[in-house]
Amino acid sequence: MKVDGTPYRTIWLGADGRTVQAIDQTLLPHRFVVRDFRTVEDAERAIRTMVVRGAPLIGAAAAYGMALAMATDPSDAMLARAHALLLASRPTAVNLRWALDDLRALLAPLPSAARREAAYRRAAEICDEDAEICRRIGEHGLGEIRRLKPRQGERLNALTHCNAGWLATVDWGTALAPIYQAHDAGIPIHVWVDETRPRNQGASLTAWELGKHGVPHTVIADNAGGHLMQHGKVDFCIVGTDRTTRRGDVCNKIGTYLKALAARDNGVPFYVGLPYPTIDWTIEDGHREIPIEERHAAELSRISGRTESGEVVAVDVLPEGSPAANPAFDVTPARLVTALITERGVCPASEAGLLSLYPEQARAA
Amino acid sequence: MKVDGTPYRTIWLGADGRTVQAIDQTLLPHRFVVRDFRTVEDAERAIRTMVVRGAPLIGAAAAYGMALAMATDPSDAMLARAHALLLASRPTAVNLRWALDDLRALLAPLPSAARREAAYRRAAEICDEDAEICRRIGEHGLGEIRRLKPRQGERLNALTHCNAGWLATVDWGTALAPIYQAHDAGIPIHVWVDETRPRNQGASLTAWELGKHGVPHTVIADNAGGHLMQHGKVDFCIVGTDRTTRRGDVCNKIGTYLKALAARDNGVPFYVGLPYPTIDWTIEDGHREIPIEERHAAELSRISGRTESGEVVAVDVLPEGSPAANPAFDVTPARLVTALITERGVCPASEAGLLSLYPEQARAA
Repeated sequence: MKVDGTPYRTIWLGADGRTVQAIDQTLLPHRFVVRDFRTVEDAERAIRTMVVRGAPLIGAAAAYGMALAMATDPSDAMLARAHALLLASRPTAVNLRWALDDLRALLAPLPSAARREAAYRRAAEICDEDAEICRRIGEHGLGEIRRLKPRQGERLNALTHCNAGWLATVDWGTALAPIYQAHDAGIPIHVWVDETRPRNQGASLTAWELGKHGVPHTVIADNAGGHLMQHGKVDFCIVGTDRTTRRGDVCNKIGTYLKALAARDNGVPFYVGLPYPTIDWTIEDGHREIPIEERHAAELSRISGRTESGEVVAVDVLPEGSPAANPAFDVTPARLVTALITERGVCPASEAGLLSLYPEQARAA
Repeated sequence: MKVDGTPYRTIWLGADGRTVQAIDQTLLPHRFVVRDFRTVEDAERAIRTMVVRGAPLIGAAAAYGMALAMATDPSDAMLARAHALLLASRPTAVNLRWALDDLRALLAPLPSAARREAAYRRAAEICDEDAEICRRIGEHGLGEIRRLKPRQGERLNALTHCNAGWLATVDWGTALAPIYQAHDAGIPIHVWVDETRPRNQGASLTAWELGKHGVPHTVIADNAGGHLMQHGKVDFCIVGTDRTTRRGDVCNKIGTYLKALAARDNGVPFYVGLPYPTIDWTIEDGHREIPIEERHAAELSRISGRTESGEVVAVDVLPEGSPAANPAFDVTPARLVTALITERGVCPASEAGLLSLYPEQARAA
């Protein structure tokens, strides 16, 4: 998407045909800095320190990490070392392992002289495939958006939680892809952006990317969405998902469930945008089967921002000695989800719905 | 309640019998500082700059402001000037006007030599009356708490939003009064404290006062409560209210409605603690009849905290140029409220329920 008029992806091959470049997401929204990765160690550090984040982008960065390793040394030893190094950078990221295994399977049988070029080509393909999946989610979501009528005034009001935008992918995003397509198609659309405590991904990433692309938006406290829905100021909600069960339960950033409850109470459609890798066909009941990661309390108690002099500092907001708890995700039951929007189309949040789009996942009778 | 073992109120008469003292709430939770008010101007500034806040406490501070005025100059001119000055300090505070009118009606007929003593006596009475109302809310709430059984383990888990504790009143608080009484009665109780964005009253005030009194508590993001309720970790919710309609709709800090929805979805009792002055007998439908104050966006975009060196600074968390909206309250419909807890007892959130406690408010047939 665009940053002040210039099209960007989150990661790309540099002009020298070897260096990989990516937006440093740890500095957003305060500073826009592009980082160069010249070695597999650079790529590993970028993933580990969340310079790049979001499952699809992590996969793409890992693929380029393998390419960088092959550019340095296309030996079998390096292939094994790069795979192990990158895999350890974010151990729970499903896309990371998928991309690394894909590259290793491709490269291992090749003569070492052919590995570098093949690795760069495959990494570029992975990026293009991810962008295409997200573009299609956007296209299918746009079809839904075209059917909605604004409740107030001329513009459609969306509400989103966390960051499921292009910064979490290679381009377009998942939940935000339909919004970018609607905006680019000239549909007047405005987005309520939940700040998304405790890590503030909405305030720092979603607001930044919408603003840079020129999409009208307003940041709100996570507390405000229910009130806005009560007063007809939200036409639809759309969020991403980290993991979707076979029956359509959605595990997404903590607080998603509260917005889904408010949407149901006020007759507001609640959509989830997702690429197929987030569907976990092996589980059914999200509430019972998905363990929720408990993250460090400091994410809640320390907040980073700009001082008046422009310096970025972290401050403590809790009383000394008050403990904090920080569950990172919650599960929105399928009954609260209006529809799932995938790269293959739109379906009800149910096993039958998902199987209508992915018939190859039907179990043997 | 106690601060590190020493009993405090939020406001009190100093040892010299003239100076009024109050906890400076603008410095919490980072510093505990007691301020001296020696003139009506001191009291006015304290109310205006939110050194004292919370409707009951504002009323008490205004009453003592009138007393300070009479100590300086018990003339008719000063009486009128002090009333006008204090009334303008927080124009929308209902308790402020009530206390000022009460003091003026008491003092105006008295000879000026008798005004000072009468004013101090009445201000002290107002404080005692408020503390007694809150103590009774606590007593009635304790009766409810005694009937609840922990869903997990041995301790009861409460969840509260914003600050409806002793810091918002003279003592005890409204929503927190039953929790203090349960704790003091030896019932093992733990409180999940919503941080309460955007002003963080939960993280900065509720956590502080619970901690200082020794009540076990854990601060959570506002996003987390629904997830905790899904997993049986909340036995009841209890909140305060800024305004309650005749039919039992509750206007409270933004985000309260989302917690009430989650409580309903998970079968968790949702209580509201309130003193009678917050009941507005003239309105019925909170959604339609209560205008919601839109506060400054900077409350969302700037956050105050302690740096590592202990300095308290404010930082900006939004991208430059991203607008923010900040509705300060929402309305929880009576259908989501399990019961109202007032100084007169516990009742259903309905007109019939409220009239069972306040029969004098029945309308002529």
